[in-house]
Amino acid sequence: MTDRRLPPAHPFDDDKLHEECGVFGAIGVSNAANFVALGLHALQHRGQEAGGIVTYCPDLGFQSDRRMGYVRDNFTSREVMEKLPGTIGIGHVRYSTAGAKGQTAIRDVQPFFGEFSLGGAAIAHNGNLTNAAALRRELVERGSIFQSSSDSECIIHLMARSMGRTIPDRMEDALRKCEGAFSVVAMTRTKLLGCRDPLGMRPLVLGKVGDGWALASETCALDIIGADFVREIEPGEMVVISAEKGVESFFPFRARASRFCIFEHVYFSRPDSIIGGRSVYETREAIGRELAKEAPVDADIVCPVPDSGTPAAIGYSLQSGIPYAMGIIRNQYMGRTFIEPSEQIRNMGVRLKLNVNRALVRGKRVILVDDSVVRGTTSRKIKEMILEAGAKEVHFRIASPPTAWPCFYGVDTPERGKLLAATMNEEEMREWIGVDSLKFISLDGLYRAVGELNGRDPMRPRYCDACFSGDYPVAPADMLEQGFKMKSEAA
Amino acid sequence: MTDRRLPPAHPFDDDKLHEECGVFGAIGVSNAANFVALGLHALQHRGQEAGGIVTYCPDLGFQSDRRMGYVRDNFTSREVMEKLPGTIGIGHVRYSTAGAKGQTAIRDVQPFFGEFSLGGAAIAHNGNLTNAAALRRELVERGSIFQSSSDSECIIHLMARSMGRTIPDRMEDALRKCEGAFSVVAMTRTKLLGCRDPLGMRPLVLGKVGDGWALASETCALDIIGADFVREIEPGEMVVISAEKGVESFFPFRARASRFCIFEHVYFSRPDSIIGGRSVYETREAIGRELAKEAPVDADIVCPVPDSGTPAAIGYSLQSGIPYAMGIIRNQYMGRTFIEPSEQIRNMGVRLKLNVNRALVRGKRVILVDDSVVRGTTSRKIKEMILEAGAKEVHFRIASPPTAWPCFYGVDTPERGKLLAATMNEEEMREWIGVDSLKFISLDGLYRAVGELNGRDPMRPRYCDACFSGDYPVAPADMLEQGFKMKSEAA
Amino acid sequence: MTDRRLPPAHPFDDDKLHEECGVFGAIGVSNAANFVALGLHALQHRGQEAGGIVTYCPDLGFQSDRRMGYVRDNFTSREVMEKLPGTIGIGHVRYSTAGAKGQTAIRDVQPFFGEFSLGGAAIAHNGNLTNAAALRRELVERGSIFQSSSDSECIIHLMARSMGRTIPDRMEDALRKCEGAFSVVAMTRTKLLGCRDPLGMRPLVLGKVGDGWALASETCALDIIGADFVREIEPGEMVVISAEKGVESFFPFRARASRFCIFEHVYFSRPDSIIGGRSVYETREAIGRELAKEAPVDADIVCPVPDSGTPAAIGYSLQSGIPYAMGIIRNQYMGRTFIEPSEQIRNMGVRLKLNVNRALVRGKRVILVDDSVVRGTTSRKIKEMILEAGAKEVHFRIASPPTAWPCFYGVDTPERGKLLAATMNEEEMREWIGVDSLKFISLDGLYRAVGELNGRDPMRPRYCDACFSGDYPVAPADMLEQGFKMKSEAA
Amino acid sequence: MTDRRLPPAHPFDDDKLHEECGVFGAIGVSNAANFVALGLHALQHRGQEAGGIVTYCPDLGFQSDRRMGYVRDNFTSREVMEKLPGTIGIGHVRYSTAGAKGQTAIRDVQPFFGEFSLGGAAIAHNGNLTNAAALRRELVERGSIFQSSSDSECIIHLMARSMGRTIPDRMEDALRKCEGAFSVVAMTRTKLLGCRDPLGMRPLVLGKVGDGWALASETCALDIIGADFVREIEPGEMVVISAEKGVESFFPFRARASRFCIFEHVYFSRPDSIIGGRSVYETREAIGRELAKEAPVDADIVCPVPDSGTPAAIGYSLQSGIPYAMGIIRNQYMGRTFIEPSEQIRNMGVRLKLNVNRALVRGKRVILVDDSVVRGTTSRKIKEMILEAGAKEVHFRIASPPTAWPCFYGVDTPERGKLLAATMNEEEMREWIGVDSLKFISLDGLYRAVGELNGRDPMRPRYCDACFSGDYPVAPADMLEQGFKMKSEAA
Repeated sequence: MTDRRLPPAHPFDDDKLHEECGVFGAIGVSNAANFVALGLHALQHRGQEAGGIVTYCPDLGFQSDRRMGYVRDNFTSREVMEKLPGTIGIGHVRYSTAGAKGQTAIRDVQPFFGEFSLGGAAIAHNGNLTNAAALRRELVERGSIFQSSSDSECIIHLMARSMGRTIPDRMEDALRKCEGAFSVVAMTRTKLLGCRDPLGMRPLVLGKVGDGWALASETCALDIIGADFVREIEPGEMVVISAEKGVESFFPFRARASRFCIFEHVYFSRPDSIIGGRSVYETREAIGRELAKEAPVDADIVCPVPDSGTPAAIGYSLQSGIPYAMGIIRNQYMGRTFIEPSEQIRNMGVRLKLNVNRALVRGKRVILVDDSVVRGTTSRKIKEMILEAGAKEVHFRIASPPTAWPCFYGVDTPERGKLLAATMNEEEMREWIGVDSLKFISLDGLYRAVGELNGRDPMRPRYCDACFSGDYPVAPADMLEQGFKMKSEAA
Repeated sequence: MTDRRLPPAHPFDDDKLHEECGVFGAIGVSNAANFVALGLHALQHRGQEAGGIVTYCPDLGFQSDRRMGYVRDNFTSREVMEKLPGTIGIGHVRYSTAGAKGQTAIRDVQPFFGEFSLGGAAIAHNGNLTNAAALRRELVERGSIFQSSSDSECIIHLMARSMGRTIPDRMEDALRKCEGAFSVVAMTRTKLLGCRDPLGMRPLVLGKVGDGWALASETCALDIIGADFVREIEPGEMVVISAEKGVESFFPFRARASRFCIFEHVYFSRPDSIIGGRSVYETREAIGRELAKEAPVDADIVCPVPDSGTPAAIGYSLQSGIPYAMGIIRNQYMGRTFIEPSEQIRNMGVRLKLNVNRALVRGKRVILVDDSVVRGTTSRKIKEMILEAGAKEVHFRIASPPTAWPCFYGVDTPERGKLLAATMNEEEMREWIGVDSLKFISLDGLYRAVGELNGRDPMRPRYCDACFSGDYPVAPADMLEQGFKMKSEAA
Repeated sequence: MTDRRLPPAHPFDDDKLHEECGVFGAIGVSNAANFVALGLHALQHRGQEAGGIVTYCPDLGFQSDRRMGYVRDNFTSREVMEKLPGTIGIGHVRYSTAGAKGQTAIRDVQPFFGEFSLGGAAIAHNGNLTNAAALRRELVERGSIFQSSSDSECIIHLMARSMGRTIPDRMEDALRKCEGAFSVVAMTRTKLLGCRDPLGMRPLVLGKVGDGWALASETCALDIIGADFVREIEPGEMVVISAEKGVESFFPFRARASRFCIFEHVYFSRPDSIIGGRSVYETREAIGRELAKEAPVDADIVCPVPDSGTPAAIGYSLQSGIPYAMGIIRNQYMGRTFIEPSEQIRNMGVRLKLNVNRALVRGKRVILVDDSVVRGTTSRKIKEMILEAGAKEVHFRIASPPTAWPCFYGVDTPERGKLLAATMNEEEMREWIGVDSLKFISLDGLYRAVGELNGRDPMRPRYCDACFSGDYPVAPADMLEQGFKMKSEAA
Repeated sequence: MTDRRLPPAHPFDDDKLHEECGVFGAIGVSNAANFVALGLHALQHRGQEAGGIVTYCPDLGFQSDRRMGYVRDNFTSREVMEKLPGTIGIGHVRYSTAGAKGQTAIRDVQPFFGEFSLGGAAIAHNGNLTNAAALRRELVERGSIFQSSSDSECIIHLMARSMGRTIPDRMEDALRKCEGAFSVVAMTRTKLLGCRDPLGMRPLVLGKVGDGWALASETCALDIIGADFVREIEPGEMVVISAEKGVESFFPFRARASRFCIFEHVYFSRPDSIIGGRSVYETREAIGRELAKEAPVDADIVCPVPDSGTPAAIGYSLQSGIPYAMGIIRNQYMGRTFIEPSEQIRNMGVRLKLNVNRALVRGKRVILVDDSVVRGTTSRKIKEMILEAGAKEVHFRIASPPTAWPCFYGVDTPERGKLLAATMNEEEMREWIGVDSLKFISLDGLYRAVGELNGRDPMRPRYCDACFSGDYPVAPADMLEQGFKMKSEAA
């Protein structure tokens, strides 16, 4: 059942993996909603389709506003923000696939809210519950009515049914029943809550702003509000933040070795965010250097595929000594989608977004650095544009290993059959894309670049790298039920 | 918690009682949504604030669209209607008070939908549950999460938790726990359901259209789709309509003497609808005749307060022989509300809607016939306008007894203290309004006009006339808990 | 050239003639825009498609807002009205045919504004210039650039090119070049201007409000703002109203016998407006009485086709003694058009707007009184609905003579071939509509009802009745050029 | 007079100069509007506030659509584009200052259209007429009615009044009366016209696409539609392009030495556009190299102020050997303005758009390269952010000389008093911004970088550099009349 659906949109970024969410929360600040809006604006790269904010103030109770589109277009006007008063608030930005059944309905936009007998609570979830279908089936069986098609709604229904005496107790209760990846930010009338799954697959950080506190998916969202970055929330940690007691920390789950998503380093996180004490930009530059060592080639210029390939291209240039240049220019006024474009416009595809710097690349041997290859369709079109412009040679260098497996932990991936690397080896891909050479960084090289000097320990890998390795740290229960074959079976 | 609230609106009809809903359902017709839209358009007088339609078709499942505003503006375009395919559908139009907490949010607009373990169901409810607060409290206690502030949502949660093996069974189960007034239309993937409360307080009729069936609040909604009026659903009856079995009838409640709302005759129902074999227009004309017998007066013309006073004015003229004339003209382009009008415009009040036919009334003795007096503010302004225009005398005749008690069965009434008749007797009211004479039809006279030749039997009244008599056929449990005083106590 | 066109709309009133405009102006009042908005609201029946307001205040200069849709939806909110400050303003409501070339663009919506070397002026025009095409051709030849497709824009260009030393001089200059029908309201920074064509075909009245003044198409627009009706602007008169000099009167045109539009009495004007000292309602009632004398018939009830047939039906009933009853009920929530309705909904046609009071008409002999017959399509459908409902006989009585000729003076009429009376005599029309009898009032009868005791003087008719008689008081120059045949030629 | 004004917007780029327009035209292609839309999308950096397209097809005549906002949001949907049929079309994107009198009204959005006695024409203008006020005054005096406040509208009125026998003749006539900067694209029913002012101050290029032709402000707009870049339109050249005769070239003006805007190289043009056979990117890189030679400094990293400083920063890094790094990250989801932001959000200023890569710059000596300094406010805030993040030293290097004079040739510049360089010398600016060093490229250095090996010839400069030098190649007549003081006078 859907309310107010938009006409079909035509996405132009379907050759990228997409993070499905960003979360943010603030407590102890005046006009919390403004902080939440700013934080979400800084996290917009994690989800562009929709966003929502919930606040609480004693006079009006809980207030919520959820909208399709960018934060900057929805949550900046005085009119909207005045209706979200209070010193505590949480928010969420969301990306979602435009599948066969149409687009996100407003009812799927988070935060979700529930009124319990002991008071209301709102939650915002980044990640994906791998047992959501089973949980939902069970909840419906017992009379819960779901309002959305989102896996995240299970959490609030589990909380509603919990016998816990406080909302934090109920959240603990609920999350213990959940499998998969979750970084959750939640709020009651007086408390801000945060929790990461035991493997810590998705990020969540804590900041201090004046006398108040903030929780965010990435540190760049702390910077924008002028908050100091305190620390990352630990894998398996739950924090309860209140005016009286400050930050209280709990570890409600059984301890496990952590497995942070390595793709956050490669592509998802913003380059100015800090993970593990180093900026994501520096890590990507290091990936580029590593790639230059692993896969050198003689050429005239190193060009990024903008904007995600930029830091790695700079690294490649610094390591190889080949000059860095912007051979491809990105149109800054390109949106993510067009609503029902005319045939002629749809056919322009990548040209609407990228243009080759013709005068620059003419007659040159060009190294193109991109962050990843998903379907390969964009890579192929870029190659055509570069050759059309008169480049002499084109060498693709990819800042991640071949993406051969879908993600079930909160990233939107095409089904396995549509991943180029699931059906071709490197040489086949090179031929299909049609370039003079194509090289991916090795998985060990990637681990070295993110700081594991000895590369990946296959017995005890430090990261979740399932999209490259097919090694899933949490069994994707719902997908297995639907017939997905794991690596051992697939082979 | 509210989503996307509109700015405050300024209602211009706040001196009328308002029916809170109209319901419609169709099964066994191609493009059921078009029939539902037409039916709701014919029922628009029962609720102008918002409307919604749910349909089901095997390909797309349940589809829903709920919107603020008129049916004709929302549910007529090809674009909208194409997204509501299927041969079964239900709909709802809604009126709601603009109270202190602001306006209806879209989440309060019906039909409500729930996905149960045995399949989905949608319901649309006309009436008001007098024990809704208690039911809600209990459901929340057990973990149900409410999405709206509507009493009607209780029904769908009670159904979700029922152990019934079929959806009709679950609806029976749920409605047996409900007290008060309800005419419900509901649907599953294959069945259209209808049910009236044991007292039959709100109307519901059955029609036949081709091979299909329709349920509607009034017969005028059958006329618009070309359906034949089959019969009224009986008080306490539940019908289950399907392609295979046609109309099945059940009586799930303990039998009681019926108490249909007498105000439906006076004002709510459309004049071309048929109740008890006679058009509502004819009943109102009869009320006017009765009023002329009870309260004659010597005058030059009989004028209705348009449009609701028209049939009674015609009756008064026919009985008295005094010529009927349109002394007050209604602006046909007046909407129900203005969004944040400027001060100057708000102050125009009733002038925006009504104008006196100055040349006609000048120097005349005028009888004004209106359907009812609620707060009395409009009557007072009309009197001023008529006198300003030069009328010699003004005699008010009211086609209902003094409205002295609030309704708790699905009609929007001001709190008791704001009802003119709750604090003044007839002479005081005459003086306050400032007219030469003011007469209300007697309760017995009204009963005679609707066909009870001996007037009202105080031991066993045939109608619910609580708004006039204070005799509430169902104890208003929630209101009593909030401190409302019944007649015996109030006295 | 069009800007931002809407999708095709489906009109449901295409079997009526339509007045093409209403005009209003105010000076010497605080917040003139509010007065203009209220006046236009009262004149909405003269044009529902679009409206506009221009005001002037020393700080901001001329401000204008022009919008598609009803006045009440566009010009009531504080946000809009605050942007139209000043003590002087004019406005316009507009009806326009939805022809082959699509709908009104916003650029066709009046008032039109021009900045001249001696200051700015805005004008609003009701009527139609019969030599507009020739004027436009000449203006374009000399370098004027038209922004709209409206004949009225000629006036402002003629003013721009005039050598007159004041704007009133220039308006005089411009209007002397115009042929046809015009009631113009205009404004400069300090003056409100009004002018009627020499025949006075379209109405224009003067009112006094506090220390200020108002000009309006009809007196009902004076009533709504609480203004006193002073007098009608004379045919051929031009008034210049300013704070210093009050109302100055000029007669710039050669004197001619006046020819007011008789159809204003029959249908266009609002029943509560006063023309010639009598309310339009009373005139229409008199038409009904006259019709009862000319065309009596034995029957059970007299029913109006709502709402325009109502006063004549009351007159017919009073004269004949046959009881008046509302056999047809109009849906009050019907708009003028639907945007791209689905096939099924479009086919409902008149049913969306009217419903027969089935219980009332069953078995009865019914006299239906309508104001006019244009194409006859609606009459035919109403007859079907009445018979379907079980009426025994149907007698149509029409409160105007057969409409056999198009109007070129500001009323939207179908081309001659589509007028039922242009191709059929009364008996053929009766048969085509399919009723037991059909009678139109005679042209003499109509003149008697509007106060000409001896009927129409064919040598010197007091009214423009071209739509009935084919006697055009001003030769329609543009139309003749396009091949239109006048009566003598057509015969 | 304004129509439908938006609420005040808060611009976040007010510390940049802004090109005021981009123009595009196509002929001889199917669905010309799609080409125009794509071309305008590629030129969006030249004007983001509004855009418009006019097309012509024999069936529907001229069609126009003009809208506020981005091309991608307005001119991509099937619904809109289907209403702009034809094989010939022109378009315009527009930037405009948000001045005291509010925002651009839709009536100021180009192309402008005029219907002349010999047929219609539409024009789109990039540049600014320095004698527009005088022209307008004269045209109004003679009876022309202006619809916009735009200087460009003079051209169409001059054309309307010309005695020329063809539209190209009339355009020639009109433009000969115009002074200042103009690159005009225009169309008739069968011809596409292009013209550059005698000095060639603004760019205009010619492309070939299939059998058709295109005119565009920059070559990047040819690339997006797959057109081949043929040549630049010459200063003072007028081209008339038709199906029968192809491209005809005329030189209607007195010959003069050309003075192309040097700021197009520095900032306005897109880096992938080609001017003078070299990409703008390469020119900017050369500026960076030149700057490194002129103003070297010892440091750890060279960082661009994104995105406009990027190519010069790369050049600086290549010349100096100091590593290039992205020390400042730009939020890609930042729009140009916010509508009425809350106080708190407005105060964030540049933080909404830029964030410092804290982990990267901490403890480093940073060279920041920006394209220009206008008011200096942004430079100051960036410095603060960089220092807050822990940088050891900050050295600003600016890729243009101090901007000390306003532009009157189609670029939005603050009034002279608000230009930092108009009131301070380099050292004062350094101190005010608060950095360790601040250096601008010299005017000679800039000339060298754009290819003049001997720098600027003060007797005969090749470029218009008035914003740096105060040497205005065309006297700004309107501004002088308003009291602007030229260099000699100002001194």
